[in-house]
Amino acid sequence: MTATGEQVFDWIDARAEDRRRAGLTRQLRPRGADSTLLDLAGNDYLGLSRDKRVAGAAAAAALRWGAGSTGSRLVTGTTELHTELEHALAAFCGAQAALVFSSGFAANLGAITALSGKGSAIVTDAYIHASLIDGCRLSRADIAVMSHGDAKSIKHALSTRRTEHALVVTDSVFSVDGDLAPLPALAEACREHNAGLLIDDAHGFGVLGEGGRGAVAEAGLIKEPNVITTITLSKSLGAQGGAVVGPRRVIRHLLETARTFIFDTGLAPASAAAALAALNALKEEPERPTRVRDNAMTLAMRLREAGFRASLPDAAVISVQAPSPSDALSWADECRAAGVWVGCFRPPSVPDKISRLRLTVRADLTESDIDKAVDVIVRCAPPGAAQR
Amino acid sequence: MTATGEQVFDWIDARAEDRRRAGLTRQLRPRGADSTLLDLAGNDYLGLSRDKRVAGAAAAAALRWGAGSTGSRLVTGTTELHTELEHALAAFCGAQAALVFSSGFAANLGAITALSGKGSAIVTDAYIHASLIDGCRLSRADIAVMSHGDAKSIKHALSTRRTEHALVVTDSVFSVDGDLAPLPALAEACREHNAGLLIDDAHGFGVLGEGGRGAVAEAGLIKEPNVITTITLSKSLGAQGGAVVGPRRVIRHLLETARTFIFDTGLAPASAAAALAALNALKEEPERPTRVRDNAMTLAMRLREAGFRASLPDAAVISVQAPSPSDALSWADECRAAGVWVGCFRPPSVPDKISRLRLTVRADLTESDIDKAVDVIVRCAPPGAAQR
Ligand SMILES: Cc1ncc(COP(=O)(O)O)c(C=O)c1O
Ligand SMILES: Cc1ncc(COP(=O)(O)O)c(C=O)c1O
Repeated sequence: MTATGEQVFDWIDARAEDRRRAGLTRQLRPRGADSTLLDLAGNDYLGLSRDKRVAGAAAAAALRWGAGSTGSRLVTGTTELHTELEHALAAFCGAQAALVFSSGFAANLGAITALSGKGSAIVTDAYIHASLIDGCRLSRADIAVMSHGDAKSIKHALSTRRTEHALVVTDSVFSVDGDLAPLPALAEACREHNAGLLIDDAHGFGVLGEGGRGAVAEAGLIKEPNVITTITLSKSLGAQGGAVVGPRRVIRHLLETARTFIFDTGLAPASAAAALAALNALKEEPERPTRVRDNAMTLAMRLREAGFRASLPDAAVISVQAPSPSDALSWADECRAAGVWVGCFRPPSVPDKISRLRLTVRADLTESDIDKAVDVIVRCAPPGAAQR
Repeated sequence: MTATGEQVFDWIDARAEDRRRAGLTRQLRPRGADSTLLDLAGNDYLGLSRDKRVAGAAAAAALRWGAGSTGSRLVTGTTELHTELEHALAAFCGAQAALVFSSGFAANLGAITALSGKGSAIVTDAYIHASLIDGCRLSRADIAVMSHGDAKSIKHALSTRRTEHALVVTDSVFSVDGDLAPLPALAEACREHNAGLLIDDAHGFGVLGEGGRGAVAEAGLIKEPNVITTITLSKSLGAQGGAVVGPRRVIRHLLETARTFIFDTGLAPASAAAALAALNALKEEPERPTRVRDNAMTLAMRLREAGFRASLPDAAVISVQAPSPSDALSWADECRAAGVWVGCFRPPSVPDKISRLRLTVRADLTESDIDKAVDVIVRCAPPGAAQR
């Protein structure tokens, strides 16, 4: 018999069958441009992705610069737009410098691997985002994972480490429950024990802090010489891409050594221009972040009043616990059928294995949007989701 | 004394000083929209990035869909554009299915990690791209690296492995010298030894094969049940993003498990639309790939005639060896000053530590562009670069 390679991936079918049995099948749901669903699932927190100024800037940049950046940032992939965006981000945050990557994921991988390595230590919170986890794995550092929200254990791990260099890695706002990391305590621990602190402000930037300057700025840490902030251009700024914001020497080091910066094509000009326009819109309308936070709190309180285990949002993300993965899925599906698009997080995307609806709010939600959301979520809830 | 964190990143300055001494400092060179440099450094091989159809499609998509996809592909980040692009890519390549990622880098990380893992083996060529290396590192598989272009050793490693599952990982066209991997021999080894074969066709797609269908299609491997192809939307297609093309069950598996797919924001609509428009342009103008290859061979032959150690290009990439890193840098700088933008690869971006000029050609280069390129490269060459 000649070998054909037919069986090589047979194991994939077995895994798919396991997922199907566990109710963990995933599915793409392509959306049209004119969907009338009430969107409580996306991350366009400020409602800027389709703002005319932002989409218009993207369109103009594509026409002026072309559809792609055509090369690595270190070769042909840096346009004047990229540089302008970097200056604007650094100035807005109040940091010395910034560096734009092709995604927030790439920014996290690049920053962590360039700032740690074999023979150094990384200490993390158990609930950090997948891109941070992968950055830690790639780094080859000694990794210690502390339980969620536990600054004391992180401090202890720093104080008992055997390596000279150490980096603490955390989300500011955790992506599943929307809760805030104990940034001041972490910063103190890092200062005291001579460690770097890398904070992923993907869900804080544009939502928290004065005028949306983010959780790191709000905690007064943005100028600290040992603090590095990563953000994404794909959530509050409504575009695509990521950035690292921090001390000049750190940014220079990333430019020269971060693999996801050097070996990746630069961000498309349209996305860079859109992020820049969104940043300008945010500066002109500093009330947007306040509205996001108010909307989140209103929605969460009303769901709690209705008996649901809704997280108390520190930013724009609310999670609502579901009895099981399949309950979460059918709950989300029924909400969608009733006109409200909510997210659904199931294992392995939840660190504690509890399945959830994941709701996100936007600055431009109206009162009647929130009424509708509550009404539909309550109506579609599976038995056992509400506590009374 | 109170700890301030000031010293935490002092080691960065020491590293910067090391790089400076070794002549390995890197620098961004922001370009304007109307640069008159002759571009032999970017990867816009087909000259489509600024094509009116492509840039126009990007602009129209930004206006219609907004600047960002607003969420993970599994939540709100899949628009009908993404699905259309996936169908078009699969159909063009002649594969069962395709999945679009936010970058080629992300596609490689996602595919490798989802198709291997602890207890499986990965066998690679020593010169694979950084994104493939990082995918292998992330995978936790047992990794064996064979010398460059050595299919026999790869076969031997497969035959003596102790694991059930194995994946061979290679570039089709290697990014430094532009040479082709021995795909038929690798495919035979993988078939015979029941292994998967992942081929990164970043520099082959759009350039090689009938109508630019790529190196994997050209080798007759695109429909093989154990072959997975990754491509990027940022080179021949002139946009941004990446894709995996392959058997339906593999694509489904990636959709459900690949971390860089699940935990990353979907590609911006403008980039998806641009890639789709570029694919259509390529279908309408199948002579573009031929022109790229002819231009590459002409330029390389003329540089060899002038005595330079120029690689013989299998696709659009030519490397020209330089005596030292600092010679490579000054050579590239002088070419640029004379109006010709060439790439410069120095350690650690070259696997064999030989510094090089890296030249790329485009379908739309004219004869007089090539004359100018040769003239300037010869004129700016450092002593010792030419062999006579
Ligand atoms: C906390 C966090 N960090 C990083 C990312 C990755 O950013 P991007 O989607 O821009 O790659 C995400 C989400 O996508 C996130 O939620
Ligand atoms: C061989 C190869 N694979 C993958 C990539 C990454 O693709 P992208 O830049 O679209 O992320 C590149 C270059 O950037 C490359 O040269």
